[in-house]
Amino acid sequence: MDIQNLIRQIRTRNQSKIVLLVADGLGGLPIEPGGPTELEAAHTPHLDALARNGVCGLMHPIAPGITPGSGPGHLALFGYDPTKYIIGRGALEATGVGFKLGPKDVAVRCNFCTLDAAGNIIDRRAGRIASEESAPLAIMLRQIKVPRVEIFVEPVREHRFVVIFRGDDLGENVADTDPQRTGVPPLDPKPLDEQSKWTAEVARQFVAQAQRLLANHPKANGLTMRGFAAAPRIPGYAEVYGLKAAAIAVYPMYKGLAQLVGMEVIGQPKTLAEEIDVLERAWGDYDFFFVHFKYTDSRGEDGNFAEKVKMIEQFDSIIPRVTALSPTVLIVTGDHSTPAKLASHSWHPVPVLLVADSCRPDHCEAFSEAQCIHGGLGQFPAMYLMSLAMAHAGRLEKFGA
Amino acid sequence: MDIQNLIRQIRTRNQSKIVLLVADGLGGLPIEPGGPTELEAAHTPHLDALARNGVCGLMHPIAPGITPGSGPGHLALFGYDPTKYIIGRGALEATGVGFKLGPKDVAVRCNFCTLDAAGNIIDRRAGRIASEESAPLAIMLRQIKVPRVEIFVEPVREHRFVVIFRGDDLGENVADTDPQRTGVPPLDPKPLDEQSKWTAEVARQFVAQAQRLLANHPKANGLTMRGFAAAPRIPGYAEVYGLKAAAIAVYPMYKGLAQLVGMEVIGQPKTLAEEIDVLERAWGDYDFFFVHFKYTDSRGEDGNFAEKVKMIEQFDSIIPRVTALSPTVLIVTGDHSTPAKLASHSWHPVPVLLVADSCRPDHCEAFSEAQCIHGGLGQFPAMYLMSLAMAHAGRLEKFGA
Repeated sequence: MDIQNLIRQIRTRNQSKIVLLVADGLGGLPIEPGGPTELEAAHTPHLDALARNGVCGLMHPIAPGITPGSGPGHLALFGYDPTKYIIGRGALEATGVGFKLGPKDVAVRCNFCTLDAAGNIIDRRAGRIASEESAPLAIMLRQIKVPRVEIFVEPVREHRFVVIFRGDDLGENVADTDPQRTGVPPLDPKPLDEQSKWTAEVARQFVAQAQRLLANHPKANGLTMRGFAAAPRIPGYAEVYGLKAAAIAVYPMYKGLAQLVGMEVIGQPKTLAEEIDVLERAWGDYDFFFVHFKYTDSRGEDGNFAEKVKMIEQFDSIIPRVTALSPTVLIVTGDHSTPAKLASHSWHPVPVLLVADSCRPDHCEAFSEAQCIHGGLGQFPAMYLMSLAMAHAGRLEKFGA
Repeated sequence: MDIQNLIRQIRTRNQSKIVLLVADGLGGLPIEPGGPTELEAAHTPHLDALARNGVCGLMHPIAPGITPGSGPGHLALFGYDPTKYIIGRGALEATGVGFKLGPKDVAVRCNFCTLDAAGNIIDRRAGRIASEESAPLAIMLRQIKVPRVEIFVEPVREHRFVVIFRGDDLGENVADTDPQRTGVPPLDPKPLDEQSKWTAEVARQFVAQAQRLLANHPKANGLTMRGFAAAPRIPGYAEVYGLKAAAIAVYPMYKGLAQLVGMEVIGQPKTLAEEIDVLERAWGDYDFFFVHFKYTDSRGEDGNFAEKVKMIEQFDSIIPRVTALSPTVLIVTGDHSTPAKLASHSWHPVPVLLVADSCRPDHCEAFSEAQCIHGGLGQFPAMYLMSLAMAHAGRLEKFGA
């Protein structure tokens, strides 16, 4: 079933406000058998109160057993089938550094590499050159000119940077030029279809000019290109849901993902408290607010249980400022689990709570993985979260007479 | 979503071992209101310990309300969409007698029947002729020759046998020759498409020769053919999961089903204890083991609650030998429910438990239908069991960046 197609047919508008609070990587695991998860170990009086007032459940970002990256994890939260809308790696990299991809853009992940005198690769990552050293080199490459194409070059970190070609007739299907081994030269950019011939030629000219500019650098005297990708064609929030949507995030990746679905990125917050400042100030101007909190995931990725617990407690502490705004629908969840025990994203379902006047209560007394098992929302694919949000906001009419 | 297509994109290899223990027809029902199910009545200390250590749930083999046969029930357990991969009846019959179907084979279920002097059917099942009498007749039919085709004839039981035609250009779409009533002759084998013309001609020649060979038998002097079917084209375990998989079963049907998905059938066990002997001996040689226990289903089909309870207790008793091997992931479940109360397969969801270091605990204290309702795995389609197994085995990479 195409849930978004169904929503388009029955959506309506009103004055309701929906808030989606995302604690990245929220779900966890006990470190020891019988112990608590991070969320269970944390002191979260405000989240627990929400769990008592609302309805809880567990969400699968993609499907049971499938661990999502940030891209598919957020697309699912936003209501998109994450196996249908694929964000290519170049597009995700550009998004991650805050570059707003347009419809005429093809983005490419690039690596600085070290070439010998014969042009063969000695080091595929330019000795993992420091960001301080590589960023000026990437910026230097902005002087490259290719006819009929606008070129953007953005540093990422260490040996990585991203190049965006903007122009007409730029297909995205070009093979990687990284030969994946040393002792051979980088490959020529090879078009994989008729529509991508011009892109490959643009890439060839870019590489040729770049190698001249980089020739005298001891480490980063060459480059390889990978993951050519245009922005995915994703119908936006206004079109699908009829929502004027705002995104509030600290990290460029999440701003970028929100932009891909047509949310307006607002404010320049540096902390969670500042994110809530932005939310408060913009309250009258939007129907829907996505607020992203990064550090629950970061500490999980670090494998630091105690610090992830602290981040959850910090997240809990701002809840009263959100409820004070009286959103019609308040949702708290994550885009995936990041158990400190695994020090990585995982496939375990993500706790979710939804508070609205129209909730049917369950018996959850706290916001925790164990309680959510018994929650009234059951276990469901994350891509259905937005239809629940829309329903509780009174923004969906009856389907069929 | 095509979960197997997704798995192919992200699967990786490691040294993990996955064991799938299937007690056929495991799920049950109380005989009297308020009473226990077979699994709840059984004394199962080892399964209960697994439930406490792992995570439980309930699986729908096909969909709520749909009762599966053995074919779709097992295909779902093996991770295949059982409504997409259909095993034709002839192919299932051949598989059930242990015949390994190849890509050039078309299998046909045949019935001996009784014809009168005019060639009209008097008895569609040859008076339910005894297996001892019919098997030699089926074997006699092996002398039939048709040009360019290899022919195999295998007794099944009573009036039933199976014929396999092997050769080039054999389509599987031929209409049944059983007219489904008496007083008329068997129908001619009629091709239903261009590709199956030669199959129909081969079948016609087979029937003509068979009737001459059977002419003097008082009961079984004719035959009808039904369910022409080639082996389904199913991508195998190596291709989909990257797993070297072994199947350990007593009954030919389950060996055959496992072979259809590319598992290697190992050993020739006659009892559950011998099946575990085979498992122990082969432990170093495979990544994945499917172990099938038949008698929980058999006693359920008999409508014998007390005996099904005993079979579950027998199944429980071998658990310590399996856990002693320290599998990375151990799954215990059934392919469907077979409540003694109904004396047949049923649609009720099947209890499942999964034990691995990466389990998120739930509060299940025993392995039972009632406890599994509250299990952390929730209720889910059986075709997702393999993605969970692969995830807990560390054999799936992140989907998307």
